Amino acid sequence: MIRVVCWGLGAMGSGIARNAAKKDQIHVVGAIDRDERLKGKDLGEYLGLKKPLGVKIDSDPVKVLNESYPDIAVIATNSFVSNVLPQIMLCVEKHINVITIAEEMAYPFESHEEAAQLIDSMAKKYGVTVLGTGINPGFVLDQLILNLTGACLNVRKITARRINDLSPFGKTVMETQGVGSTPEQFKAGLKNGTIVGHIGFRQSIKMIADYLGWQLDRIEEEREPIISKTRRETSVVKIEPGMVAGCKHIGRGIIGNEVVIELIHPQQIHPEIEQVDTGDYIVIEGDPTVSMAIKPEIPGGKGTMALATNMIPTVIDWDPGFYSMADLPIPVCLPQKEE
Amino acid sequence: MIRVVCWGLGAMGSGIARNAAKKDQIHVVGAIDRDERLKGKDLGEYLGLKKPLGVKIDSDPVKVLNESYPDIAVIATNSFVSNVLPQIMLCVEKHINVITIAEEMAYPFESHEEAAQLIDSMAKKYGVTVLGTGINPGFVLDQLILNLTGACLNVRKITARRINDLSPFGKTVMETQGVGSTPEQFKAGLKNGTIVGHIGFRQSIKMIADYLGWQLDRIEEEREPIISKTRRETSVVKIEPGMVAGCKHIGRGIIGNEVVIELIHPQQIHPEIEQVDTGDYIVIEGDPTVSMAIKPEIPGGKGTMALATNMIPTVIDWDPGFYSMADLPIPVCLPQKEE
Repeated sequence: MIRVVCWGLGAMGSGIARNAAKKDQIHVVGAIDRDERLKGKDLGEYLGLKKPLGVKIDSDPVKVLNESYPDIAVIATNSFVSNVLPQIMLCVEKHINVITIAEEMAYPFESHEEAAQLIDSMAKKYGVTVLGTGINPGFVLDQLILNLTGACLNVRKITARRINDLSPFGKTVMETQGVGSTPEQFKAGLKNGTIVGHIGFRQSIKMIADYLGWQLDRIEEEREPIISKTRRETSVVKIEPGMVAGCKHIGRGIIGNEVVIELIHPQQIHPEIEQVDTGDYIVIEGDPTVSMAIKPEIPGGKGTMALATNMIPTVIDWDPGFYSMADLPIPVCLPQKEE
Repeated sequence: MIRVVCWGLGAMGSGIARNAAKKDQIHVVGAIDRDERLKGKDLGEYLGLKKPLGVKIDSDPVKVLNESYPDIAVIATNSFVSNVLPQIMLCVEKHINVITIAEEMAYPFESHEEAAQLIDSMAKKYGVTVLGTGINPGFVLDQLILNLTGACLNVRKITARRINDLSPFGKTVMETQGVGSTPEQFKAGLKNGTIVGHIGFRQSIKMIADYLGWQLDRIEEEREPIISKTRRETSVVKIEPGMVAGCKHIGRGIIGNEVVIELIHPQQIHPEIEQVDTGDYIVIEGDPTVSMAIKPEIPGGKGTMALATNMIPTVIDWDPGFYSMADLPIPVCLPQKEE
């Protein structure tokens, strides 16, 4: 049995904990959340499982990590390298492997070169493995694209679209996407950096380019608000017509004046209310050209929870260091415990 | 530079050699084919490349392997474990890594348990890596399916179809598929084992089941001829109306009385002549259900050539032993040499 600590019990972290607890090879042995109101609650009860798990939620990471002897911590606290770095370091120094769904951690080897090198060297020093994963970045718009290029003799250009539903995500994602803001607030938020749209284009584009051996001259990004014509609501946000339901974000990897990688990602809550067909679409122009569609899109919430859980045994077995999804064997759905 | 010997210069092997010769990291240093008429010819000239490669084709494997100091041999001689086993062993004992596109080698750990264990133990003894790959088995109907399950919390059933064009393949494939036979010859060929349809269902189904942790009770296969209404022709076979243009082959993995894996694979030459839409389709029933389509299908010839080439650096770097595509990091299209 692999001993797992779940760090962060927001929308994603709770889902990972719930999923991990059901898996055959996994024993959830600790749970960390900064929300003091959860302190002392049984994790199983908090997650709505049939039985208590005998694991008390705690806000003190050092205490949980010291007392639960985990093989691995799954960190689902935040999107940004700067915020998860100290959490990762705490685990690594205690010889605990790490999976994080922090988007920037999917491939920060250029965007956060110093932090990435630090994590890699510390992971090697302490003999543990660190992986950034998630549905996107980490899978649909990078790993899956690269995997499909494996069946190509050569590749000239990549264009991919992920038209998805943000509804299952938590407050952090809504805020960084500008969901629930007015168009003016959206514009201001983009300017002051509180609204960032999708987090991960720099990482996905760089991952694709590096593995294809392409030297990009620059990465460009473009964001615009998706203005709702209708009332839309999730458990964490309500929007009225005229407000922002999401962000259409485009990332481009450019060589000279040529766009060689284009990732298009309009994300919003409840796209079905305005008859938007969701899906994941990948076109690899090359020899052969490969055109893939997944309809509807792989849901972001469940996909992220699944990937973070399914990569656990691979990360445990892997060589020490900091890796991306392009470095490791494919994720495979883990079998569940017998009921 | 990775030093590569290409063993087998039929339709697939020639394509692999042509592709490998164009790749940045690869130096093709030797070529083996049993056809004595090719002996002494320059490989580059035989492949129709712009320049000679300075590599003479030879029919003597021992001579080529001894004199060309390869890091790896790519074996594209035959579909069956029994036929490629001595070729693989010869390489392994010379400390040469091996990639083979022999379909049965994609995952022979149950279908040819003894041979697979022998290859694995010998590979470990001699410090080399052996991989079976190809478009199918090896990618579309196994690795790609498994990769997509990685984004699932759980999986109940897998149904996948590969509706493809056999036209680019060589004589071996045409014969084993019954292309060019009469319906009577097809029936007789199935009975006496000369016509086998798709080779690889037992391997793909077992690979999927093993990695999902499913204990199958049995694997069933069903084959029927695709009778042509039209005249069709490739460089290696001609068929008249009423003759067999291909084989519709279905493989099923069964637990109790329930089909949990169903792979459907109607293969024929020039399906477009009879308005058959080709494509690769995967449906993973689970949470979430994932429904993927690649239209048209990834072409089998180019896909196999690409995968056999693109896996070379990974196989070189990998731990000693015998592995499948589900064990190794994803294939990625290798960059080409500057012209």
